[in-house]
Amino acid sequence: MSLTDEQQSEIDALRANPKMTLRAVSDGMEAHLYKAIAVLDHGFIRVVDYMGDDASICQAARVSYGKGTKSVQNDAGLIRYLMRHWHSTPFEMCEIKLHVKLPVFVARQWIRHRTANVNEYSARYSILDREFYIPAPDQLAAQSVINNQGRGEALQGEEAARVLEILKTDSNRAYDNYEAMISEDGQAGLARELARMNLPANIYTQWYWKVDLHNLFHFLRLRADAHAQYEIRVYADAICKVVADWVPAAYGAFEDYRLGGATLSGKALECMRRMIKGEAVTQENSGMSKGEWREFQGLLE
Amino acid sequence: MSLTDEQQSEIDALRANPKMTLRAVSDGMEAHLYKAIAVLDHGFIRVVDYMGDDASICQAARVSYGKGTKSVQNDAGLIRYLMRHWHSTPFEMCEIKLHVKLPVFVARQWIRHRTANVNEYSARYSILDREFYIPAPDQLAAQSVINNQGRGEALQGEEAARVLEILKTDSNRAYDNYEAMISEDGQAGLARELARMNLPANIYTQWYWKVDLHNLFHFLRLRADAHAQYEIRVYADAICKVVADWVPAAYGAFEDYRLGGATLSGKALECMRRMIKGEAVTQENSGMSKGEWREFQGLLE
Amino acid sequence: MSLTDEQQSEIDALRANPKMTLRAVSDGMEAHLYKAIAVLDHGFIRVVDYMGDDASICQAARVSYGKGTKSVQNDAGLIRYLMRHWHSTPFEMCEIKLHVKLPVFVARQWIRHRTANVNEYSARYSILDREFYIPAPDQLAAQSVINNQGRGEALQGEEAARVLEILKTDSNRAYDNYEAMISEDGQAGLARELARMNLPANIYTQWYWKVDLHNLFHFLRLRADAHAQYEIRVYADAICKVVADWVPAAYGAFEDYRLGGATLSGKALECMRRMIKGEAVTQENSGMSKGEWREFQGLLE
Amino acid sequence: MSLTDEQQSEIDALRANPKMTLRAVSDGMEAHLYKAIAVLDHGFIRVVDYMGDDASICQAARVSYGKGTKSVQNDAGLIRYLMRHWHSTPFEMCEIKLHVKLPVFVARQWIRHRTANVNEYSARYSILDREFYIPAPDQLAAQSVINNQGRGEALQGEEAARVLEILKTDSNRAYDNYEAMISEDGQAGLARELARMNLPANIYTQWYWKVDLHNLFHFLRLRADAHAQYEIRVYADAICKVVADWVPAAYGAFEDYRLGGATLSGKALECMRRMIKGEAVTQENSGMSKGEWREFQGLLE
Repeated sequence: MSLTDEQQSEIDALRANPKMTLRAVSDGMEAHLYKAIAVLDHGFIRVVDYMGDDASICQAARVSYGKGTKSVQNDAGLIRYLMRHWHSTPFEMCEIKLHVKLPVFVARQWIRHRTANVNEYSARYSILDREFYIPAPDQLAAQSVINNQGRGEALQGEEAARVLEILKTDSNRAYDNYEAMISEDGQAGLARELARMNLPANIYTQWYWKVDLHNLFHFLRLRADAHAQYEIRVYADAICKVVADWVPAAYGAFEDYRLGGATLSGKALECMRRMIKGEAVTQENSGMSKGEWREFQGLLE
Repeated sequence: MSLTDEQQSEIDALRANPKMTLRAVSDGMEAHLYKAIAVLDHGFIRVVDYMGDDASICQAARVSYGKGTKSVQNDAGLIRYLMRHWHSTPFEMCEIKLHVKLPVFVARQWIRHRTANVNEYSARYSILDREFYIPAPDQLAAQSVINNQGRGEALQGEEAARVLEILKTDSNRAYDNYEAMISEDGQAGLARELARMNLPANIYTQWYWKVDLHNLFHFLRLRADAHAQYEIRVYADAICKVVADWVPAAYGAFEDYRLGGATLSGKALECMRRMIKGEAVTQENSGMSKGEWREFQGLLE
Repeated sequence: MSLTDEQQSEIDALRANPKMTLRAVSDGMEAHLYKAIAVLDHGFIRVVDYMGDDASICQAARVSYGKGTKSVQNDAGLIRYLMRHWHSTPFEMCEIKLHVKLPVFVARQWIRHRTANVNEYSARYSILDREFYIPAPDQLAAQSVINNQGRGEALQGEEAARVLEILKTDSNRAYDNYEAMISEDGQAGLARELARMNLPANIYTQWYWKVDLHNLFHFLRLRADAHAQYEIRVYADAICKVVADWVPAAYGAFEDYRLGGATLSGKALECMRRMIKGEAVTQENSGMSKGEWREFQGLLE
Repeated sequence: MSLTDEQQSEIDALRANPKMTLRAVSDGMEAHLYKAIAVLDHGFIRVVDYMGDDASICQAARVSYGKGTKSVQNDAGLIRYLMRHWHSTPFEMCEIKLHVKLPVFVARQWIRHRTANVNEYSARYSILDREFYIPAPDQLAAQSVINNQGRGEALQGEEAARVLEILKTDSNRAYDNYEAMISEDGQAGLARELARMNLPANIYTQWYWKVDLHNLFHFLRLRADAHAQYEIRVYADAICKVVADWVPAAYGAFEDYRLGGATLSGKALECMRRMIKGEAVTQENSGMSKGEWREFQGLLE
């Protein structure tokens, strides 16, 4: 990750300047504010603002006049109840704003989560920096042989070296040519909004991303999942750590009911009941397809 | 408006307990936090939380590392530019959470603004209070004779008295019967979720309502407008005052470009050009329908 | 349910007039178009329009040029896979538009599903009809003694009679007074937008409601559920039947994975594994609260 | 634009197979269904499905039982009224589904319109084609010297040739290397989800995009505007033509009130009034900034 000295000193200035507020304050989150948490080779997330805490969730659920909480114990129980019964609106009462630096191909997956507010760095207006994501050797993975949409083992030896060389060389050449095309030195200079089309999807962009806690949990459930592409999962993992410090009770419930939980179909529930009674259930007599059965088996281990 | 002593002392307690934060703070908004601003006879709005300030809008528009502002002067100019050119996402970077008490028929209009987060008091779970909106005499208006969807002059004399009497009597009888039906004294007691169906639309409900500044401006443009029903307009007017204290530059731009501005059709623009050249334009040679022409004339006065 | 002769003949005229189209056609849905399906005492749903069928879901999932389907068998398998893995966007490619007549207190729950398009009959502009929901005797239920938000056994004898009498009398008196207030016979007449506040929440309203299949499934999962209030559940049940005829493969997957399925927490999954191994698990050694344990037990029966 | 023979014959097959429907049919739209309308060098839009017509807008606005229209004349007037007064929900009652092929950098702008449903071709799952957008000579524009976010005159002579050569060469080299990295010939083969990061933003992708008419008009207002980047504007222009054939009355109102209209601020309205009275208004006495004044002058010409 690369913050310039100027950027770092702006961040330091913001952290050096606490003010008084009457709003709900999460001490766990204050410790994160503005700091850049490194992700991938040049990326980061940093919390720029937040609204609410665990008590805010309960306060809204109770539409009470005063503080939401009667006791922290009560709040944690209420929050678990809300999460278990898919109550979404109380979690929407907390909000987070992140500044994220990320490769464009990750940004393209991320933006599919529509219920969020985004301001992205404009490559029509501004010049992009020469920063490209180059996978670490252990993440330079082969195409999965069992899953069309996944990766297998890391590439080895010469093949790995060849791929790395291609990614680095092409990135740099593309950027050299980007610079050459927009240069106004001895020529008119191509419009930025056109020149950017030469840049590959591993270039870094950045944005402000603001989302409520309910929709953030939805994002995290899909993107902190083992099936998510590694390069977005590491962002989701970094955000999970921040959220655990911000709203510990809500995050605990999320971890148990969503990240650690699973949805069983009617067929799977019926198999579960038969197995608990001691019956030997096989794919053949389960009513499930092979794929469903394999996934169900995964839950039993 | 009626806050109980307990509610008022909870509010006082919250206001007596400032904490330190590293987040953006709006002093204008801190002065409002938790206080109940009276609207109609028993309603109120009160700010429960907020995120961001004028500088946050600029910070996101610039995707910067530090504060949004270079100078307050620059920020105001940038904000006017963003408003004029319909940039919506930077305004989405500010968020407000209100606690609102309002009649059900107002709530039914309000909820049509979908891009917001809401937790409403549950009449399935809880018992509603005996609080009904009864219009003040100057708002007890006759049906408009020119606009199907509007009101005319205030009712006078006996008719006004008769209407007031009906509204009060029916409200109280409905509530008496609501209480009688849910009573468990000597009977099973009707389910709350059923008994509430007897209550009229002027009963008060309350909710937490959280919305970003862009969508709030959209709400205010429609609901602080002269065509909005009076009973929701007074809520919008009260919110306008709060927003003016929260984000003065953004509110100033909103006031000039949205509340005080108008959208002209291609036909109206053409008429404007002809009139500025000194031509006498009439409805007949304007290309507009009578309704459009009347509205256009309204802008010229 | 009450359609006037005029309404029924408008519906008949629409059904008598088939046209040619190149779009995807669902024969199961064509059979429903425009017909009113009775719900509660005066309500209904009727399909006014739809877009797409099972094949459209697959077509979008494959971003193909031709029809989605290679074979109906393949499509059903793909749709089950998409449902199991929480893919939402292909289901968003189907859309339905309903005309619904429903009591106001049901409409207030319904409208909380925000991702839908709605046009409601305007009581500012028009005069409401004298139609009120009066529960059938078996639905005149007592407040639940174990669940604050639910109902128990049906009221009996005199209490039931008393409640029915109140609901009918208050509804009619409120409507009489509504009519008296807006009457322009010998008086100015109160504005409609004000007079409606006297009407109770069991009066019927109606709206056009348009929603995509993914969000409709979300609505149905929550509202066709045993925890939903009876008066909205019967609407959801009626819609379920229509959807089963419209997109049979998608509805089958929804029924198995959502309506008939359940989400287990990490703790519940661990208990399931221990029980399948033959271990005796009790609430005390489950790690679950009493409420969670009770719900988990419900799944095992 | 390049459809394979197979794709073209799939389209022909779909168009050769009309069916009966009871739904609203727009003859203007039926003529477009499935056909690919060329945009840029390899892109297209094609209508895959639609719901509703002009009468559907009126039907919903009136919440009627039969067809929306009393007469085409009445409908057009009502639609103009709805558009002029910013009624959005009736326009949401029409829906369109497009299949679009477009360069990735255009897709990145397009996707910022969040209220729409999208299924994009997956470069994790599938292999992208060798198709890149290369601007036509008249669109190979220099950076604007007056607008950071815009383009000026077309590049000339050697500079133009140099830029074209770079774009073509880099695109092809990137694709050669993409193919080399994913090849499983004598090597493991890099995962597709990684290899795609080497591809530049002018590569074509494709998606199914479904949106309601209100949100489509919002998209078109911003993207068919002179300030939009040329490469997305040509898509918006192509869609405008289709919409004009689909819902002629709604499109006519949109053209007059949105595309051809303008929003004046309170300050601009005041200036307009003074100018109509014959007063000489200058930037200095207008109360506007130079930028606002320049834009206002643009409206007077």
